[in-house]
Amino acid sequence: MKAEIITIGDEILIGQILDSNSKWMAEQLNAIGIEVFQITSIHDDETHILKALAEAARRVDIVLITGGLGPTKDDITKLTLAKYFDDVLILHQDIVLHIQTLFKKINYPFTELNKKQALVPSKAVALMNFYGTAPGMWFEKNKTIYVSMPGVPTEMKGLMTNSVLPLLQSKFELPFIYHKTILTYGMGESMLAEKIADWENELPKPIKLAYLPAFGRVRLRLSAKGKSKEQIVNLVEKEAEKLIPIIGDIIVGYEEQGTIEQIIGKLLVKKNKTLATAESCTGGAIASLITTVAGASRYFKGSVVSYTKSAKETILKVNPETINKYSVVSAEVAKEMALNAKALFKVDYAIATTGNAGPTTDITDKSVGIVFIALATPTQVIVEEFNFGQPREKVIARTTNKALEILRAKLIKN
Amino acid sequence: MKAEIITIGDEILIGQILDSNSKWMAEQLNAIGIEVFQITSIHDDETHILKALAEAARRVDIVLITGGLGPTKDDITKLTLAKYFDDVLILHQDIVLHIQTLFKKINYPFTELNKKQALVPSKAVALMNFYGTAPGMWFEKNKTIYVSMPGVPTEMKGLMTNSVLPLLQSKFELPFIYHKTILTYGMGESMLAEKIADWENELPKPIKLAYLPAFGRVRLRLSAKGKSKEQIVNLVEKEAEKLIPIIGDIIVGYEEQGTIEQIIGKLLVKKNKTLATAESCTGGAIASLITTVAGASRYFKGSVVSYTKSAKETILKVNPETINKYSVVSAEVAKEMALNAKALFKVDYAIATTGNAGPTTDITDKSVGIVFIALATPTQVIVEEFNFGQPREKVIARTTNKALEILRAKLIKN
Repeated sequence: MKAEIITIGDEILIGQILDSNSKWMAEQLNAIGIEVFQITSIHDDETHILKALAEAARRVDIVLITGGLGPTKDDITKLTLAKYFDDVLILHQDIVLHIQTLFKKINYPFTELNKKQALVPSKAVALMNFYGTAPGMWFEKNKTIYVSMPGVPTEMKGLMTNSVLPLLQSKFELPFIYHKTILTYGMGESMLAEKIADWENELPKPIKLAYLPAFGRVRLRLSAKGKSKEQIVNLVEKEAEKLIPIIGDIIVGYEEQGTIEQIIGKLLVKKNKTLATAESCTGGAIASLITTVAGASRYFKGSVVSYTKSAKETILKVNPETINKYSVVSAEVAKEMALNAKALFKVDYAIATTGNAGPTTDITDKSVGIVFIALATPTQVIVEEFNFGQPREKVIARTTNKALEILRAKLIKN
Repeated sequence: MKAEIITIGDEILIGQILDSNSKWMAEQLNAIGIEVFQITSIHDDETHILKALAEAARRVDIVLITGGLGPTKDDITKLTLAKYFDDVLILHQDIVLHIQTLFKKINYPFTELNKKQALVPSKAVALMNFYGTAPGMWFEKNKTIYVSMPGVPTEMKGLMTNSVLPLLQSKFELPFIYHKTILTYGMGESMLAEKIADWENELPKPIKLAYLPAFGRVRLRLSAKGKSKEQIVNLVEKEAEKLIPIIGDIIVGYEEQGTIEQIIGKLLVKKNKTLATAESCTGGAIASLITTVAGASRYFKGSVVSYTKSAKETILKVNPETINKYSVVSAEVAKEMALNAKALFKVDYAIATTGNAGPTTDITDKSVGIVFIALATPTQVIVEEFNFGQPREKVIARTTNKALEILRAKLIKN
């Protein structure tokens, strides 16, 4: 069973917004065994929409459409769908009522424009949108399913979760799709490929391998699809295991276990340990990432973002002599920051970062991209130096990732 | 001149990564007067790629392709392009040299697989990739231009900036495209549309209007395209001005002035003022956003992320009595956090946040989603209460946005 996602809206084509809806939908469809064959972003334009619908119907079984369902003039998806299916719009009184109830709650006046939202093509099944005014619409024609949903993420997600995914699952006997993504650090893509060439050549047919390289790490994704969940999982797991004797030293984990901040959270809870950060060049990015995890307050105590020499001295109590002798971007200052943050927040682990993220050079003698990461543990303090190059966002992102990797590795060993 | 962006790679279609490349490319192309007509994401599959290329050539003048240029087996874009153009690959010695130089710097061994990266179809112009091993490739056939680039964002961006955009600009006389996006807060989409209906109906033909609603705000985007930059800008600006007497009270700014963190940075530099934050529920997200701006160290001094009662008391010196009397999630605590952060970092402005981001309830008596934001200015301290609902990421994001809006409004008035 193949699907295509069509997003309608100029805002994606002029680069004003990021298409995060399609990523989420693709993940959800994959999880229930539907392959996303193509994602197509098109204009709010009748000719373009009609053509894209017809083309998609030739490629796939299920066409999921988002966007263009607002009450204003620039939104033309519903009228265009009526044209595509040679249909007329009819008013749904239950949707009028739903909108009125919704608006009463938030004290919005109900206008004539809102009433337009309750018009639905007669050939469509209207799907309840709990979080907004535009209903989802389900059409079937020549064995192809078309579903139209609003582009507002919460509304689309509600419709997918409550209606579209369960309906697709009940309608089709779907295969099982399994992905396992192996996270490796510290070896380039080409070298890695040569090292695992024999293993790769002998992979059983149903397994597809992909290399996903990024900033000092390569993710290896194994994918397979089949009728039996047990069989597919076993097949993939067996091949993943064979990699351990070959490249076990550079495997740090598996993406499906969660993000690194989630893994760290689980490890800290399990060990009943606490964490704080002292951040200079990362400007709070590490604390911010750690606190995206629900329940982080169980193990995360806080952070001092010291963006000046004075903040390092007065709040983090870094010795002014250390700064004068070694400069703020130094192993010595990073160490003191980590140790003092550990004491200040009374925690078991403290991460500290200091570096020059650029693009302007600061008062230190180090060049842009140089970063020191220190980690204070219950028994010691370690520090590492890196050159993360440029640009600024890369330096911040790589420092954040690397700091979390160092912490994760320590937590597993300790 | 119309372009299509084709992204090749299963990782987008299974929802493993977000397609941020296409957003960036669309923005850049728009800025030089090239309209992105469609964005298409397809599989690493020969048949699919060949079909997508042929279809795109029927729709547009310029086809920009990213992805599938790595050295490993799953990357098949280059071979498929050679097939599409009925071409053979030839070795470029200068690219071999470039890769060897690149690898020497970072101490990576040069392997046979890397040499494959220096093979380029004979009909292509190879474009220098300063940040990686795979060159860009420029093809022309039947008046259509095809450019293939790696999917790694820094490499694609380097190629676009250094080669592709300048080449397109020199080759075509491009029109001027102008967007102005008006940010409004506090009025629903339908009501807003009714309020500006007369103005909308009388918009001159070349101007297109779009409504972009999200979380309590609606952005109104005016777009126009034409030969004369002056004429187009004047036309759009005149219409935007006409909105001020109609909805001036809900307009807070214009998106093209930059992101809110950039605008705040400019305002602080202009007024020669400094900033710090004291964050509880936002966990460093505000500091992190502020420090993404290059040069932030000129005005941002730091942050205390106090994720516990004890951190609020010992580092931020919040009076324990205030916490006991009002709870940590209270206007009084937010005020003290802001005032004390202002003193601690010796700054002119300090933002403080305290709230319950959920999903677990903490020791306070306030329900999930309740947030207090305080702002200490050179002369006063203000505090506001919000209920940002759920889920967690929405609470953190809305608190961060709202805090920056409050600061921005204050900076403009002061």
